[in-house]
Amino acid sequence: MKRTAFFISDGTGITAETLGQSLLAQFENISFTKLTRPYIDTAEKARGMVQQINAAAERDGARPIIFDTVVNQEIRDILAKSNGFMIDIFSTFLAPLEHELISHSSYSVGKSHSISHNAHYMERIEAVNFALDNDDGARTHYYDKADLILVGVSRSGKTPTCLYMAMQYGIRAANYPLTEEDMERLQLPTALKPYREKLFGLTIDSERLAAIRHERKPNSRYSSFSQCEFEVRETEKLLRREKIPFINSTHFSVEEISAKILVEKGVERRLK
Amino acid sequence: MKRTAFFISDGTGITAETLGQSLLAQFENISFTKLTRPYIDTAEKARGMVQQINAAAERDGARPIIFDTVVNQEIRDILAKSNGFMIDIFSTFLAPLEHELISHSSYSVGKSHSISHNAHYMERIEAVNFALDNDDGARTHYYDKADLILVGVSRSGKTPTCLYMAMQYGIRAANYPLTEEDMERLQLPTALKPYREKLFGLTIDSERLAAIRHERKPNSRYSSFSQCEFEVRETEKLLRREKIPFINSTHFSVEEISAKILVEKGVERRLK
Repeated sequence: MKRTAFFISDGTGITAETLGQSLLAQFENISFTKLTRPYIDTAEKARGMVQQINAAAERDGARPIIFDTVVNQEIRDILAKSNGFMIDIFSTFLAPLEHELISHSSYSVGKSHSISHNAHYMERIEAVNFALDNDDGARTHYYDKADLILVGVSRSGKTPTCLYMAMQYGIRAANYPLTEEDMERLQLPTALKPYREKLFGLTIDSERLAAIRHERKPNSRYSSFSQCEFEVRETEKLLRREKIPFINSTHFSVEEISAKILVEKGVERRLK
Repeated sequence: MKRTAFFISDGTGITAETLGQSLLAQFENISFTKLTRPYIDTAEKARGMVQQINAAAERDGARPIIFDTVVNQEIRDILAKSNGFMIDIFSTFLAPLEHELISHSSYSVGKSHSISHNAHYMERIEAVNFALDNDDGARTHYYDKADLILVGVSRSGKTPTCLYMAMQYGIRAANYPLTEEDMERLQLPTALKPYREKLFGLTIDSERLAAIRHERKPNSRYSSFSQCEFEVRETEKLLRREKIPFINSTHFSVEEISAKILVEKGVERRLK
């Protein structure tokens, strides 16, 4: 059975999209066509949306599910006339919150509000720059400024994880690739030793690592299963010996890995 | 007035955090202490949470607001005994959705489900790698594989925007810095000409640009206001002349810029 879902907002649509994705993921036996429609901020755009919704309803033979975070009442009234099943996120929760907080929300006075504001902007860009500048062991003399330093073999997922933590949480995360030399000596690289408490390891299944490396350098020693297997085994041995916490990234998304690292290290988000 | 808000989940907490942040942003006159608590997946951790919630209630002299996406009923029952005001996200919306979809959710059968799964993993990592490999004009011979190419002066926000679009939406975005030479000739660089339909410009206020560049290279020609003002003016002239759509990034978050670019270019998300 096929259903269409729309995530509609007069802003970026991120809230509608995140909540909608999460709710729809609970219905594993239904296949959804998901469409995000941000910046629906005029009556004209709203009427265009109604046409899209009604066309999908006809195509599917069933009402589309609409997740919306539109603030403007006129626009919501137009959307409500479509042949969709509305999950009106803000209306549902803001009334009980206003009651609890004994305060009117911007929503109830019809004012839009953008999510993440300028106070955060610089901090976040700085964190992204930090991750880029301190990627892959490029520089080691700023580790005193790092919130975290990820270690692991090449292509174990360190860079995307650092970038995600920077972007989402404003965390300054450096990363350092362990080399064969480090593994053979079974010692932490000298540059890392003073920052032991900031270290966190990423490992990965050897088959997965070989597949990822193969995309980059096909049929090389670097991407061979035996080399990957050696590096992963020795790295895990080193991390255990040095009592550095680590996680196997194979079966987790970047979000999951990041959240687990912050919990484990007790690091709080910098963007709030 | 000070209130504490908890975003609690047995997963990453991203849904609870995103929705909670969005709802609390509507109450501009209240200052919230926001705490994300992911992976609350045992009765013991839930009891620990209850203690934290009750301690915050005592400190603030008011109940904390709890946004939760916990699936397990036992854990939710424990949290419900705390002295917090619960916004139970999944319970609220899954019952009406089950009714509309004539289907039981994993939630109602007590099964957890992680949000973004492995099908997405490789596509997303590939997109992040694409953004990194094709950053700052480093390579131009993969532009045929790009979904988008951002152009603009150095430090106008191209790199974080490309990385965000890669991470969040799986979009392959390259970026190319316009140089003084391009501006003086008032012509698109040769490498970009075949890909005109993929181009999108980022500009920025000269004061903001000078401040950002000053962080990198203090008191240089590069960071001087007159140089920034010249580059921004000439770049905007070039973009207008070449009819390349652009946005001034100064007053928008990376999320907002990304969402606006996708709408403007009609590019659909690759991760769904």
